[in-house]
Amino acid sequence: MKEYLSDKECNRIFTDQVGKIEKLFSDMFAGRHPVSLYEPCQYIMQSGGKRLRPFLVMLSAKAVGSDYNSVLNAAAAVEILHNFTLVHDDIMDNADKRRGRETIHKKYDLSTAILVGDNLTAIAYQYLLRDCPDNSKAVIDSFTRGIVEVCEGQSLDKEFEIKPSVTINEYKEMIGKKTAALARVCCSIGARLGGGTEEEITLLENYGENLGMAFQIQDDLLDIFAKEEEFGKSVGIDLAEGKKTYLFLSALARAEGEDLALLKNVIKNKGAASEEIPVIRDMYDRLNVIADAADEINKYTNAAIGAAEAVKNKEAGALLVWLAKKLINRNK
Amino acid sequence: MKEYLSDKECNRIFTDQVGKIEKLFSDMFAGRHPVSLYEPCQYIMQSGGKRLRPFLVMLSAKAVGSDYNSVLNAAAAVEILHNFTLVHDDIMDNADKRRGRETIHKKYDLSTAILVGDNLTAIAYQYLLRDCPDNSKAVIDSFTRGIVEVCEGQSLDKEFEIKPSVTINEYKEMIGKKTAALARVCCSIGARLGGGTEEEITLLENYGENLGMAFQIQDDLLDIFAKEEEFGKSVGIDLAEGKKTYLFLSALARAEGEDLALLKNVIKNKGAASEEIPVIRDMYDRLNVIADAADEINKYTNAAIGAAEAVKNKEAGALLVWLAKKLINRNK
Repeated sequence: MKEYLSDKECNRIFTDQVGKIEKLFSDMFAGRHPVSLYEPCQYIMQSGGKRLRPFLVMLSAKAVGSDYNSVLNAAAAVEILHNFTLVHDDIMDNADKRRGRETIHKKYDLSTAILVGDNLTAIAYQYLLRDCPDNSKAVIDSFTRGIVEVCEGQSLDKEFEIKPSVTINEYKEMIGKKTAALARVCCSIGARLGGGTEEEITLLENYGENLGMAFQIQDDLLDIFAKEEEFGKSVGIDLAEGKKTYLFLSALARAEGEDLALLKNVIKNKGAASEEIPVIRDMYDRLNVIADAADEINKYTNAAIGAAEAVKNKEAGALLVWLAKKLINRNK
Repeated sequence: MKEYLSDKECNRIFTDQVGKIEKLFSDMFAGRHPVSLYEPCQYIMQSGGKRLRPFLVMLSAKAVGSDYNSVLNAAAAVEILHNFTLVHDDIMDNADKRRGRETIHKKYDLSTAILVGDNLTAIAYQYLLRDCPDNSKAVIDSFTRGIVEVCEGQSLDKEFEIKPSVTINEYKEMIGKKTAALARVCCSIGARLGGGTEEEITLLENYGENLGMAFQIQDDLLDIFAKEEEFGKSVGIDLAEGKKTYLFLSALARAEGEDLALLKNVIKNKGAASEEIPVIRDMYDRLNVIADAADEINKYTNAAIGAAEAVKNKEAGALLVWLAKKLINRNK
């Protein structure tokens, strides 16, 4: 069957729309005072990233019959919010690099990084409000609830670091809040601002939620397979750091004997030694952990695609399907 | 002239209204999950404080003809927001204690303190939205602008720590953002939610702004005069830490010879030695720095009182005057 839009056409639209967001970010804080606050704000907003979240907002508005440009500021808002979480997460994770550049607390200092994140939160609301008509309480409610969930998700993630046993359901709750909630919010505010019906809003929220879940489990999987230059970080870094990823927790639930002893050792030592990483990778294969993770990713992706296929606007529907497929096939 | 309300009556109303806020805070996060996030949120919200900001919101609603209860959640919102700034400021200032209790990053850890602050910001919006009718964009705008200003003010404060020369005007800009902006926001949202006219809103915003300025300069003055048990911190702590307070900057602008050398030494050493504190205090007296600070406080307080006397509702007007006078005479 001929697709409504070719891959090339989808790519062009994606590049065009994201280009508008990049342009908006390029001089977002130019000339703003105090410089000690806005220079690092500018630095983080121009540090790249896929810009998937703003694209989701624009697509969701389009999906309900509005147009991309009507929610440009709201789209910027979710990306600003996302960057606030990155700045603060990098402090908590003691990370030196992000997207190949120095993190804010490393390039500047801790106080600056805390303040940059705090300020970006409020700036995000300011951009959101620019696209809000006077009666947009539901939009602001949704956005705000997203922030609470992201904080709760990050808090659970931190809890899991020290908690000896974490179930797959607990893990899903965590990524549901930490990653999928914001993707759902993107679709929710785009659809609401675009004037969608409650039914359309729910449909697009489901798309975002499922896409977010698939994205995060895929992220865990890529840690094991990605090439360093493509993924921007080393292979097996989650294992080296002893992160309780989807793969690790699945393996932990299935492993016995020597396998189980090795995994428990990784927990005890708060990370795997470099020679243990290929051994664990083989174990993941042997225990069907990788195949099952791929199944989970497919399940969420298919749910997202099902929602996308039901949207009113053909162009947006095609792009939402394309995006879900693109993410499942990404290698970084 | 007989006052509209006696001091005793004012105190009773203050205690009653603030009691409602305390009650709201007492089980605000009870049973909420994850515990690692909400237990410290609960801890900070019950750590006391004067609760002046929520009272300002309630008074401003009353001032324009509405009632205290109509803005109870919005009042809680500004106090939650204020507590978010305290949690993050305490990290930046490396403070171990706040109101006689351990600070969050000390009692828990850095990551928790960052997340608690981030989460409280979003929770503050949620409480604000509870009292917002659907068309409350101006209220949310005002609230958001307040957060940006507080971040900018804190950023300037941090800049001043390493900047050799700071003028009194720069200092006023800083406290205008760091302290007065939030007081203005309290009055602004109270008056807006209470259905005030633009003229009434501006009048009350002016009250809040001037009260905030007076409050902060008074705070600087109290550092030199307060008794430890009353103020909750040691006398001269700003000097010991080399903070560029209103008093210090005024003295720096006036001092010559030995006086100037001593002050420059405090800057160079990033703080005064304990034997230097009484010497500098005498210098402040000699250079009329204290008398002039008192004049400034009076100027701002009188501007606030002028605004308060013009409000429509007699009870709220009397309480706003009472509050301004109470703050000027406080010893902690």
